[in-house]
Amino acid sequence: MSILKFAIFYFLFHLSYAQTNIVDFCVADFNYPVGPAGFPCKNPANLTADDFVYSGLGVAGNTSNILGVGVTFAIDLTFPALNGLGLSMSRLDIAVGGVVPIHSHRVSELIIVIEGTIIAGFIDSNDKVYSKTLNKGDIMIFPQSLLHFQVNVGNTPALAFVSLNSASPNFQITTTSLFSNDLPTEIIRKISLLDVTQIKKLKKILGGTN
Amino acid sequence: MSILKFAIFYFLFHLSYAQTNIVDFCVADFNYPVGPAGFPCKNPANLTADDFVYSGLGVAGNTSNILGVGVTFAIDLTFPALNGLGLSMSRLDIAVGGVVPIHSHRVSELIIVIEGTIIAGFIDSNDKVYSKTLNKGDIMIFPQSLLHFQVNVGNTPALAFVSLNSASPNFQITTTSLFSNDLPTEIIRKISLLDVTQIKKLKKILGGTN
Amino acid sequence: MSILKFAIFYFLFHLSYAQTNIVDFCVADFNYPVGPAGFPCKNPANLTADDFVYSGLGVAGNTSNILGVGVTFAIDLTFPALNGLGLSMSRLDIAVGGVVPIHSHRVSELIIVIEGTIIAGFIDSNDKVYSKTLNKGDIMIFPQSLLHFQVNVGNTPALAFVSLNSASPNFQITTTSLFSNDLPTEIIRKISLLDVTQIKKLKKILGGTN
Amino acid sequence: MSILKFAIFYFLFHLSYAQTNIVDFCVADFNYPVGPAGFPCKNPANLTADDFVYSGLGVAGNTSNILGVGVTFAIDLTFPALNGLGLSMSRLDIAVGGVVPIHSHRVSELIIVIEGTIIAGFIDSNDKVYSKTLNKGDIMIFPQSLLHFQVNVGNTPALAFVSLNSASPNFQITTTSLFSNDLPTEIIRKISLLDVTQIKKLKKILGGTN
Amino acid sequence: MSILKFAIFYFLFHLSYAQTNIVDFCVADFNYPVGPAGFPCKNPANLTADDFVYSGLGVAGNTSNILGVGVTFAIDLTFPALNGLGLSMSRLDIAVGGVVPIHSHRVSELIIVIEGTIIAGFIDSNDKVYSKTLNKGDIMIFPQSLLHFQVNVGNTPALAFVSLNSASPNFQITTTSLFSNDLPTEIIRKISLLDVTQIKKLKKILGGTN
Amino acid sequence: MSILKFAIFYFLFHLSYAQTNIVDFCVADFNYPVGPAGFPCKNPANLTADDFVYSGLGVAGNTSNILGVGVTFAIDLTFPALNGLGLSMSRLDIAVGGVVPIHSHRVSELIIVIEGTIIAGFIDSNDKVYSKTLNKGDIMIFPQSLLHFQVNVGNTPALAFVSLNSASPNFQITTTSLFSNDLPTEIIRKISLLDVTQIKKLKKILGGTN
Repeated sequence: MSILKFAIFYFLFHLSYAQTNIVDFCVADFNYPVGPAGFPCKNPANLTADDFVYSGLGVAGNTSNILGVGVTFAIDLTFPALNGLGLSMSRLDIAVGGVVPIHSHRVSELIIVIEGTIIAGFIDSNDKVYSKTLNKGDIMIFPQSLLHFQVNVGNTPALAFVSLNSASPNFQITTTSLFSNDLPTEIIRKISLLDVTQIKKLKKILGGTN
Repeated sequence: MSILKFAIFYFLFHLSYAQTNIVDFCVADFNYPVGPAGFPCKNPANLTADDFVYSGLGVAGNTSNILGVGVTFAIDLTFPALNGLGLSMSRLDIAVGGVVPIHSHRVSELIIVIEGTIIAGFIDSNDKVYSKTLNKGDIMIFPQSLLHFQVNVGNTPALAFVSLNSASPNFQITTTSLFSNDLPTEIIRKISLLDVTQIKKLKKILGGTN
Repeated sequence: MSILKFAIFYFLFHLSYAQTNIVDFCVADFNYPVGPAGFPCKNPANLTADDFVYSGLGVAGNTSNILGVGVTFAIDLTFPALNGLGLSMSRLDIAVGGVVPIHSHRVSELIIVIEGTIIAGFIDSNDKVYSKTLNKGDIMIFPQSLLHFQVNVGNTPALAFVSLNSASPNFQITTTSLFSNDLPTEIIRKISLLDVTQIKKLKKILGGTN
Repeated sequence: MSILKFAIFYFLFHLSYAQTNIVDFCVADFNYPVGPAGFPCKNPANLTADDFVYSGLGVAGNTSNILGVGVTFAIDLTFPALNGLGLSMSRLDIAVGGVVPIHSHRVSELIIVIEGTIIAGFIDSNDKVYSKTLNKGDIMIFPQSLLHFQVNVGNTPALAFVSLNSASPNFQITTTSLFSNDLPTEIIRKISLLDVTQIKKLKKILGGTN
Repeated sequence: MSILKFAIFYFLFHLSYAQTNIVDFCVADFNYPVGPAGFPCKNPANLTADDFVYSGLGVAGNTSNILGVGVTFAIDLTFPALNGLGLSMSRLDIAVGGVVPIHSHRVSELIIVIEGTIIAGFIDSNDKVYSKTLNKGDIMIFPQSLLHFQVNVGNTPALAFVSLNSASPNFQITTTSLFSNDLPTEIIRKISLLDVTQIKKLKKILGGTN
Repeated sequence: MSILKFAIFYFLFHLSYAQTNIVDFCVADFNYPVGPAGFPCKNPANLTADDFVYSGLGVAGNTSNILGVGVTFAIDLTFPALNGLGLSMSRLDIAVGGVVPIHSHRVSELIIVIEGTIIAGFIDSNDKVYSKTLNKGDIMIFPQSLLHFQVNVGNTPALAFVSLNSASPNFQITTTSLFSNDLPTEIIRKISLLDVTQIKKLKKILGGTN
């Protein structure tokens, strides 16, 4: 077998699409504005394995807050290799009694419990609740766009990882959506059926005005 | 020009793919279970123009209820020609002071106001409110999955149509999601920061238990 | 409940993905070229509710033309908040006897008749016609890519709105496609089976050459 | 290296997802109705290489018709292995002076000329014509949903293959759409601007009524 | 606030789309054949939280095999709630010195290391290697369809979870693809450049014939 | 029929969406970086039919190399009109005894044999081989991401064209992926089960190090 001949083939075969490896992946280049499908891609010639590895989820989140929860995100903005690949991951540290408040996002989410015991649940569009206690090694799926939550009901801190099928999921927390902005109290009352006293109390806590 | 010869061509040309018109559209056949992409299709040979027209949105919805709103849906289940085509439409009748309560769905929504004056708004995932008074002829876009609402703030009944880019959108109403099921009061308190008194009051109104 | 503690949580929780709200929507920034998925996004920090509302469909289109029709478009180019969200809307004003000529587009279309009486129809790829008279409140679906048309057959002007599941639909009008450009008469004759006299007559009206 | 040990691994590793190879491909099972994403899949256990090979395009189409064209389709209905894979292919035999009439379809098309000389072209939604003479080895792209055509302008029969990115493309031929059904002459006149005489003449040739 | 009146609203508002909650999720019903988009859905009325939770990943895989690896899959076939939601998860137990052999799949994969130290890597289509040592808490992305592998290079067993953005990923292991079937030795030699001796040796180990 | 009046209509109707024809197609502009959905689009005003035609596949590839194969690509980088349209085509020239080595790519591929006799095959994720001899006019489908190959087993050079449903497919050749880079021999041994001697021999031929 002739090395030379193969090298020629190899040269010819690869040269013609040498640049196409750009489509293998698309590490986000933040020097350009994002578009509907994500960020433009960095030149792959300058990439190394370091671009595809992220260590941020190895550090416990700070749970010294009122909810007793620390959330750390590996999404396109923190881990740009995810751009265009339709996946992200987050780390949940939940103190004893801590809570990931009720929220939703466009895409679906899989949770895996690594330590501790939590109650996790979601609510479907017919208002039916699907809620269950999860222990170490259990996984649960939260279907796209439905409200869901997690509560540490064990006696030890809980650790879980969640995976979502978007590199850039949005997260909408119901309570801060209602009470931490300038949406007028009277409007909130009408669209939520909550009492004015309750609304004003939570606005005060969460920084809402009007 | 020979009619005969063309007819032969026509026969040949069309025969070979005669059955492919099945892909032009896919009117839902409810005799089969739905799948992730929608319902199986009815045989197109039996379809007429009537299958592609729906008159249900021509009738005003009943607004004699506590929210003063009537919503009528043209979705795959009521208008099966929409199946697989990624569009649906709904009619909103809102009495004076009436409300479409805060809710969300997977897909985006365009509203057009036909009669009356409403305040419409949505909240983004950073808790910023985008809210505006809409009059006859105004349209507003509510981006996919974000919480939004409409309130009739005029002196006359309001009429609007909304279009969503799914034949089978889900609608999740925040308030009934929280208070009209068996989600325990203590869990609701933790995941929403609402007071127990408030939760119990709304559970009573909306039929919630626990 | 400590405001301070919650504020700390809130800060931590939101800071980490503060910029991700960019994915909630993607208002088109026309300073950059469009791509296959749409335009790059404006910085959301500068957006207000006004960016998400469009009033152009509130004005009747001019029907003083040979077809008796005025079409007004709310698409990405006129209403940039639609960019990336897969929806657009257009207003049809059709004078008595007026016509939306036969045309097609990549995506599906839902029409709702607000005033008047029209005949609307589409033709499937087996040449079968689905045509029906629509009155106020009726909706009809025109499946993606199929030829369709609307004619005002009532005694009063007609008003309708159409919704399409693309922010940037293309519209191809069959008659102007054939007769308002430099496609040679002999080619048109061969590919359409129309007579040379007819072709030349319409080219003259529609500005075609060759 | 122990064969036995590897065999155990192999058994364990493969057993757990043995049935998942069903997702490698989805050969259409015509015993079930089609859905928006295609036909249900045959059991892969019964498939052989023969299911993935089709010889129908090896035979020249009959061009003894008024258009001088024979079109042979390898689509899901004739070659069920294409189901769900988003590709199809067709063979065009075009006699001297023969024509593939102006038509459109939802998806894009690539043509490659194997023998002969044709003029091929498409028209964009601004009515601009892109037309060129193609010789052996030339390829041309016809973007999704735009009207296009091919004419043999050489002195020998032409042979070409077209590839479309759908296993089940629809084909809408403009001329038969207008003249080979029961669409009333007066409607056609209004929506196409064609003369009544022309319409009646082509209806007669193509079997149209009304 | 009248409970009765709200109940009426609630009834009206929900009744009209009661069945639409079927689109919230689509738990696979294995009584029907799979299609290109997944399995048909079970009736949601019969579902409970148990359908959305899977405990199979809580058990360590058996690593007593030649590769020293145990892989446990949570995919649509084992965890049917994933059907149609575009996510799956797998558990990797890798003994000291153990290996997940080089393989590929259609979709992208995120790995998170829970215990131990591994070398993970992928190769792009320009033959460039991206390989790195991963420790507890590190994540790495393997872009869709590219060859990749993991090797335990630490002194303790390794545990990792991988998430893929398909409910039904295919896994193609390069070595068994080549040597554990009836692909003739001479063909393998030609398409892989491997020596006949090597091919025959691995065929013997892996059960290949011809 | 008044030319003037029609012209006015035409002006009004077209002006309002004049720029939308940009979405008909998106010829790649290489002055901007690529993104996950492809390159930004050239201004369509400057395009001509030449942009949509490519003649590079009309020239036979050079088969004077060790594999006896010449591959010529019409992909976005060589034929920028394909950008965003989800199709590409390549030409395979295979000398007597020549080989397209085993490889894979994200998308599906249809091959059509124009001259000669080849054996083509693919392997599914259960290691089952689907292999068959193809003659002139035969087509075969290689489903997305699965390993496949072609070998000229006839007595004459073979010519084939392949169509893939991506404008920018990646191609991963198994043998060069393993042996033409710096992946350490010991790692290759572990992840492939190949012998060190074999690995070193092919590294030498293919330029691999370590």
